[in-house]
Amino acid sequence: MKRIDKQPILKVRGKEFGGKGLPLICTPLVGENREGLERELEKVLPQGPDLVEWRLDFFKNIRDFDQVLQAARTVRLRVGELPLLFTIRSEKEGGHPIPLTSEERVGLYETVCQAGVADLLDFELGEGEENFRRVRETSRRYGVKLMGSFHDFAGTPAPERIMATFRQGERRGADLVKAAVMPQKAEDVLTLLQVTLEGRKSLSIPVITVSMGNYGSLTRMCGWVFGSSLTFAMGEKRSAPGQIPIDELKAVLKVMQKALGGI
Amino acid sequence: MKRIDKQPILKVRGKEFGGKGLPLICTPLVGENREGLERELEKVLPQGPDLVEWRLDFFKNIRDFDQVLQAARTVRLRVGELPLLFTIRSEKEGGHPIPLTSEERVGLYETVCQAGVADLLDFELGEGEENFRRVRETSRRYGVKLMGSFHDFAGTPAPERIMATFRQGERRGADLVKAAVMPQKAEDVLTLLQVTLEGRKSLSIPVITVSMGNYGSLTRMCGWVFGSSLTFAMGEKRSAPGQIPIDELKAVLKVMQKALGGI
Repeated sequence: MKRIDKQPILKVRGKEFGGKGLPLICTPLVGENREGLERELEKVLPQGPDLVEWRLDFFKNIRDFDQVLQAARTVRLRVGELPLLFTIRSEKEGGHPIPLTSEERVGLYETVCQAGVADLLDFELGEGEENFRRVRETSRRYGVKLMGSFHDFAGTPAPERIMATFRQGERRGADLVKAAVMPQKAEDVLTLLQVTLEGRKSLSIPVITVSMGNYGSLTRMCGWVFGSSLTFAMGEKRSAPGQIPIDELKAVLKVMQKALGGI
Repeated sequence: MKRIDKQPILKVRGKEFGGKGLPLICTPLVGENREGLERELEKVLPQGPDLVEWRLDFFKNIRDFDQVLQAARTVRLRVGELPLLFTIRSEKEGGHPIPLTSEERVGLYETVCQAGVADLLDFELGEGEENFRRVRETSRRYGVKLMGSFHDFAGTPAPERIMATFRQGERRGADLVKAAVMPQKAEDVLTLLQVTLEGRKSLSIPVITVSMGNYGSLTRMCGWVFGSSLTFAMGEKRSAPGQIPIDELKAVLKVMQKALGGI
């Protein structure tokens, strides 16, 4: 059987998004202060993720940019050569409630880019075109890659809607796009995988897709077969429903890789 | 998320086809004589399959019904309380070339039923209505369950065609139906899973589905999530492309079961 022909690849610190074979494994950090993050990293790093996502919306003193930067430098130092993804998830897309306006979020991302601690930012496409443009400009200036993301914790939108969001991210200059949606029925899991395949074939940038929750956790294991370039796995704590422990995910991926051969 | 509502269940020696949760695991035997089968069983049984399939088309002296019965009694004794499935796969549906006509195959199944060694027969729907009717009558008389099967080693037919075959099996009185098809592209794997879901919802009997080959091996691991009631796993030797070793399959299923929760 033929592989999907077109393979847009994004390389970040040597890790390939959209490369051949297994997906990258990303483990989220949800510590609420620097000490918490350090403890988390002690557990997470030995499990060998390909990259680490810092969910800043879990950080308690997020309004204190100095504290954020101090923690960021610690995390940066600890993850070493692993790519570090910064994410401020908005409450309406499933994040921890935080006291920052959209404007302030943009400002925090700019601070983070200037400090040279991030390799990759996750910014929601729902934050609006102008905000996205600002984050894109700053991140580009500092050589930071940008993921345009979309989350639906209530359901799985029609395939055309998910694809339209992907194309929006592509138009706005994102380096890759991500969709995380919730299945309401088993069909929704297949729909998400179908969209993954379509996105992978027709977009000029790599895609990340997730179907969340119990049923959806299947896509965290097999989404890569259909073109999802990264999967989120739990290090110490879950940051979204359906994430499975990294060691269990790795065990499954190992069997799948062997069974599926050189795809 | 809701489970699929309608759940036709078939019970064979206490094993439930179409029951809640994980699929049954069936390991094929492909020994070419009684000694070969015994050696195979020594390896296969400790791995804990839920049922055992004897692929009679691999048996060298298949024309010698006495030898077949002698071997059958040995296998029956060794598998003990596990359900035993008898399968004569035709060459055109991927079987080993054998010197039996369709008529003779029907006769061999009748012999097997009369001898009381089988719990379940696999008979191809492609063998024609009259042959199927005969096997159905005999098997019913001896309390043996019947699987109506369909194989396509060249491609994945349109969903409507697979469903039509399932309905044909249902009409002809099969206790369950099976489709094993080959994917030509990643989409075909999703198509097969979609049909599985549809069959599971709309048929009055349990379904077994397989997408074969490398990509298809994914369905051997996750088809149950969409309603496939059984998965074939390699004990000592593969009987079809894409089968994975039973211990690896079990490791994957364990992680999936935990992640997917009580579906």
